[in-house]
Amino acid sequence: MRKVIVQKFGGTSVADTEKIKNVAKTVIREKNNGNDVVVVVSAMGHTTDYLVKMAKDLSTNPSSREMDMLLSTGEGVSIALLAMAIQAQGYDAVSFNAMQIGIITENVHSKARIVNIKTEKLKKNLQEGKIIVVAGFQGVTEDGEITTLGRGGSDTSAVALAAALNADRCDIYTDVEGVYTTDPRIVPKATRLDEISYEEMLELAHAGANVLHPRSVETAKQFNVPLRVRSSFKLDNLGTLILGVDKMEIYKPVTGVAADLSQARIVVCDVPDVPGQAAKLFGKLAQEHISVDMIIQSYARKISNTNDIAFTIDSADLDKTIKTLEEMKKDLQCGDIQINDNIAKVSIVGAGMIDRPGIASAMFETLADLGVNIRMISTSEIKISCLVDKEDAHKALQALHKVFELEGSEIADVKGDLPNV
Amino acid sequence: MRKVIVQKFGGTSVADTEKIKNVAKTVIREKNNGNDVVVVVSAMGHTTDYLVKMAKDLSTNPSSREMDMLLSTGEGVSIALLAMAIQAQGYDAVSFNAMQIGIITENVHSKARIVNIKTEKLKKNLQEGKIIVVAGFQGVTEDGEITTLGRGGSDTSAVALAAALNADRCDIYTDVEGVYTTDPRIVPKATRLDEISYEEMLELAHAGANVLHPRSVETAKQFNVPLRVRSSFKLDNLGTLILGVDKMEIYKPVTGVAADLSQARIVVCDVPDVPGQAAKLFGKLAQEHISVDMIIQSYARKISNTNDIAFTIDSADLDKTIKTLEEMKKDLQCGDIQINDNIAKVSIVGAGMIDRPGIASAMFETLADLGVNIRMISTSEIKISCLVDKEDAHKALQALHKVFELEGSEIADVKGDLPNV
Repeated sequence: MRKVIVQKFGGTSVADTEKIKNVAKTVIREKNNGNDVVVVVSAMGHTTDYLVKMAKDLSTNPSSREMDMLLSTGEGVSIALLAMAIQAQGYDAVSFNAMQIGIITENVHSKARIVNIKTEKLKKNLQEGKIIVVAGFQGVTEDGEITTLGRGGSDTSAVALAAALNADRCDIYTDVEGVYTTDPRIVPKATRLDEISYEEMLELAHAGANVLHPRSVETAKQFNVPLRVRSSFKLDNLGTLILGVDKMEIYKPVTGVAADLSQARIVVCDVPDVPGQAAKLFGKLAQEHISVDMIIQSYARKISNTNDIAFTIDSADLDKTIKTLEEMKKDLQCGDIQINDNIAKVSIVGAGMIDRPGIASAMFETLADLGVNIRMISTSEIKISCLVDKEDAHKALQALHKVFELEGSEIADVKGDLPNV
Repeated sequence: MRKVIVQKFGGTSVADTEKIKNVAKTVIREKNNGNDVVVVVSAMGHTTDYLVKMAKDLSTNPSSREMDMLLSTGEGVSIALLAMAIQAQGYDAVSFNAMQIGIITENVHSKARIVNIKTEKLKKNLQEGKIIVVAGFQGVTEDGEITTLGRGGSDTSAVALAAALNADRCDIYTDVEGVYTTDPRIVPKATRLDEISYEEMLELAHAGANVLHPRSVETAKQFNVPLRVRSSFKLDNLGTLILGVDKMEIYKPVTGVAADLSQARIVVCDVPDVPGQAAKLFGKLAQEHISVDMIIQSYARKISNTNDIAFTIDSADLDKTIKTLEEMKKDLQCGDIQINDNIAKVSIVGAGMIDRPGIASAMFETLADLGVNIRMISTSEIKISCLVDKEDAHKALQALHKVFELEGSEIADVKGDLPNV
């Protein structure tokens, strides 16, 4: 029986007509493998920026409904052009926008979630042997309102289509070769993973390895869609397969290590130990749209009957956070507020660490041997994160990568600049 | 009771965000008159050219289905931007594409005809006090395929929407001030007509006065929609109202005069007088997509038993026509083929000439007095056309304009270059 493969190409892959021709070749290659192919594409390169600029010319606060109308035209262009490029190679292709297929979302603009995908039209056209090109990022409500899916939207479209069609695989084509054990720019011996579980991928993504938007990985996990991250340029490289932990052959306790250099730590000292103080503090921060990552509250000191509450935020939110906390100081009846943005979060991630004791202590020992001071610790079932001084982050990452046996023999193909320390 | 007014703005009126802001003001002005307003817009300025260029990069012969998918995105952009611009002025507006409304067309790509327009969504939104912005030029089939309406498509969208909503008027905003008695570039005393009938407008359009595409006028005539051609820039000028001849107060036999300088005359001499020769000749020309305008066949000459068949074509088709005729010469068993592209067609148009004898003879006399030789004559119920030498066209037009009392006291606001003679 023929397999159904969903492919997804982002905006940089379809940025101009030459690139669209290349995408057409990649699509046809999969079709020639004897598979049914559904291709999801984003808007061309800088189209979205250009459309947003015009909207801002007309309105300081354009309505999200009309923004969705405007932005959804971007994929309308790329799907039609890709279908033409495939046809020009002598293959039958047909493009559909979200409204034509029935990619039904909630009635929320600019960040709608998909609730249902109608498959009649897709199945009929696949049966006729056609390659189907679908607009990513967009949806439609039951009432015919056009919506968009927000950040990572096209990845999510692809995964949701794969789930609806019960596809054999969803291939996300990108400019990296897959998911690595760690950032190859910091650890040159980083290895591309052949497989990784959804859960590990999610923890790595949140820990700073931004290959896929977490939302698309969550959707893939929910519907158990095998997801492959692979290079648009090196087609013989199969990239990394992301799948359910139950389907993996777990051979190492740790799958990857990551460092997040863009965090800042805040300590709110001497907060009176009465109920509701944490709720008050973090409620206010949420209200200001400040995302908080690690949170640690010390045991209440018996003499003063106060706590220290420490947490980390994105450095970009630092000024806003300080302003918010200064305003709350009286209300919280707290003491000093200490700021440290010279820190980094180093994490190890692995589904294999579940029920395998000693992983955490191995991490702490490694850092101790390096003379790296651990300032905060936070753990989940498959992740351990330590907050360290920023200047220690690279050597910590390199040592952990080695200790947990993630080193490859070849030096990875490094792209981009090294993050500043 | 509130009136429903449909307004239409073309691509040059929405070419950039500054122009879109001006259109928003014109729309709001009509809303402030106490009317319900539906606005139809085309794609921004050169959008279509840009999209077509990309398609040509990808395919020498892109499928018309995918071209329609591609081109329909152009209006998606302009409707969203115009809705934002109206909202920014504090008015409630909502944009819809053809699929959302249900502007149903035949299942033909690139030149579909509208067969039905669903009005539920339009009426509901008008009742809620919203200004509705609709994508022109596009439609959708019953099966959800996106179509486009071809040349003059947005004008036709506007007229069809006005018909479906039983609108009080359809205003076509353009860069001219209305319909004139003749080309103001040739006859400075040309007057803007306050009223003209659908039929006269059609005859004038075909005679070279290209203010509206004939198709939109035909639709307006069919559904009896009062159509106003007016200036985007001079809002206090009401332009020209185009309406049913029964609703007009006819006070002059001739409404307008026009000259078409882009024609060429062909005479096929000595065609044997046997049945089927004309069918063979014009069938072949139609097959080659050569449009024929005037056709005259002389009485068969008794001695030779042959006819001369004369006809006019667009000069642009001249080379193709000569080539086609040379190939047919043997088959037709005809004599010489005479070519003359130094000619012009001068026409007078007026619903008032029906049942009013002497109009034709007044035209012929006028030309005779000028010493202008008439080379061919063709007539319809409301039009008389004479083929004359090209160098006589301007003086003929000026004289006819005067004889039929079309002169205005003011000199018209002339735009554009004088056509070459």
